[in-house]
Amino acid sequence: MTLPTILLTQGDINGIGTEIILKSFPKVRRLNARFCAVGSFREFEFHRQHLGLSATLQEIDSLDKLSSTPRATLPVLNLDHKARTRFGQIRADAGDLAMKTIELAATLCLDQQVDAMVTAPIHKEAISKAGWKFEGHTDFLAHLSNKPVQMLLADERSNLRVALATVHVPIAKVSERLISQGISDKVAMLDAALRRDFGISNPRIALLGLNPHASDGGVIGREEEDFLKPTLKRLKRKFNIDGAFAADGFFGAKRYRDYDAVLAMYHDQALIPFKMLAFETGVNLTLGLPFVRTSPDHGTAFDIAGKCVANESSFIEAAKLALKLSLARRRER
Amino acid sequence: MTLPTILLTQGDINGIGTEIILKSFPKVRRLNARFCAVGSFREFEFHRQHLGLSATLQEIDSLDKLSSTPRATLPVLNLDHKARTRFGQIRADAGDLAMKTIELAATLCLDQQVDAMVTAPIHKEAISKAGWKFEGHTDFLAHLSNKPVQMLLADERSNLRVALATVHVPIAKVSERLISQGISDKVAMLDAALRRDFGISNPRIALLGLNPHASDGGVIGREEEDFLKPTLKRLKRKFNIDGAFAADGFFGAKRYRDYDAVLAMYHDQALIPFKMLAFETGVNLTLGLPFVRTSPDHGTAFDIAGKCVANESSFIEAAKLALKLSLARRRER
Repeated sequence: MTLPTILLTQGDINGIGTEIILKSFPKVRRLNARFCAVGSFREFEFHRQHLGLSATLQEIDSLDKLSSTPRATLPVLNLDHKARTRFGQIRADAGDLAMKTIELAATLCLDQQVDAMVTAPIHKEAISKAGWKFEGHTDFLAHLSNKPVQMLLADERSNLRVALATVHVPIAKVSERLISQGISDKVAMLDAALRRDFGISNPRIALLGLNPHASDGGVIGREEEDFLKPTLKRLKRKFNIDGAFAADGFFGAKRYRDYDAVLAMYHDQALIPFKMLAFETGVNLTLGLPFVRTSPDHGTAFDIAGKCVANESSFIEAAKLALKLSLARRRER
Repeated sequence: MTLPTILLTQGDINGIGTEIILKSFPKVRRLNARFCAVGSFREFEFHRQHLGLSATLQEIDSLDKLSSTPRATLPVLNLDHKARTRFGQIRADAGDLAMKTIELAATLCLDQQVDAMVTAPIHKEAISKAGWKFEGHTDFLAHLSNKPVQMLLADERSNLRVALATVHVPIAKVSERLISQGISDKVAMLDAALRRDFGISNPRIALLGLNPHASDGGVIGREEEDFLKPTLKRLKRKFNIDGAFAADGFFGAKRYRDYDAVLAMYHDQALIPFKMLAFETGVNLTLGLPFVRTSPDHGTAFDIAGKCVANESSFIEAAKLALKLSLARRRER
């Protein structure tokens, strides 16, 4: 069997993405996989010099060149683009480069030329400035692969997995979006991923409520009584699922330890506890794609960009998980 | 100076409230204060016997009798009520007793006959069934004292304090409520309480954003750009306040350590991190009242009611904080 090939996308060049790829490579290259960065070679080289990192880079124009790159050298599949690094700035050119990089990597994944992509963070305002109408990686990849997807946060160390029923949705629109999209497909996709990608035979899933105290029986909003409870009753016929739990008590009492995954209703309900429990080791992955995609669970961190102080732990964990899932997928074929 | 007098309200008799009062008393009675339970004496006695607890109770019909009660005996200011304990059940009679108990205790506080009340948890659905149109303690006490109030969560051990801009509001209505009520009064009340009750001379306050990633510059909802940022700019003239921070990164990176208090936009944004960091020692207190009110940060826990397994730590911390704040208020008079 050939080694799995995993692409590392550059992300927003004005943030810490390029830095964490360069810092991660000396550690991840020892894994049984081939890694290849994707993005602007010129900017990769600029970051390397600016940060004083010793990594050796090699520009390639096609994946055919991968096998001829020495193992200690990071190959960079180059994407010609005018964008230049301006540390900490929200810029349309950087947003555009970031999106084109993802597009290129996703195309190679969809063509099955590679197994997986690990994505460095992008900045939503920068991509919006560049005229791209996507909220982030997740919905862009859903669009490119024409599949319904969902975000899962995973921490291998604490065995915590949290999926999101809604992601980058303003708080005022969460209820509406939740009810119009439903949660049944999310639960089915989560259950399937736990079985296939994580090898769990009878996954236990916990569903969180939407409102404070999971509405206290309908006193604080009606979504639990009118939507979540009837849905849960139907889902229980097919899945090992419990809920809807009041989110604060659920995390406070560490009840997530009794479940293989948690389905949260909105972004911060998932991300606050996840970042608290798995700050430097948590990984974000996209379920539902025909390939593996993982990413660190932090953002572009413009405030510390270019200072060589970014922590690459989460990116390394994302690369490790991408390899684990790539192997599980290969076994399945 | 006479000892501060602190009332302990029974809460919903079908939950763990009575149990944690009975379990706390042997520990809190060593503090320099007089404690007096308020509620149905018959049900206090029923819980004591059912749970096999050794506390000695004494029914009193007026606070005048307090001084003649032995220190080792818990006086219970009796409120005659038909409600009988049915562990774990959501019942109108219990909801009604709970609210009348709070009303009696608040009246005694407002009359300055006592210094503070520590409240055992009530059940929102039970009080709603009983026809009371309140969401919980906080808004009922605001009504009784005719004052604007707000909830503050405090953990003396970790020095974490989190205030809430909205409390028992359904997620779908949070944005609307936030903007209609504003946050300026909340910040002013929080700043005043940190100075007066906690003795902090130049309080540092952190403001959280409402939307995921604090909206990433307006890409995920407009509340940050159109409402929070302009408000913050005005508030900075008067207060030492920063923000608006994306809540997940704020708690993940432990940035709360740099602030004396955090103002969260909605219930779970405050309560998830608070319960994770201060699960058995966190205390809830109500700012803005002319008296001190604290409570444990857990609910009625109907699932474990009557089983003698409830943990009284948070109630003990609530009693200790009530005493500390009572003394601060007395010094101020």
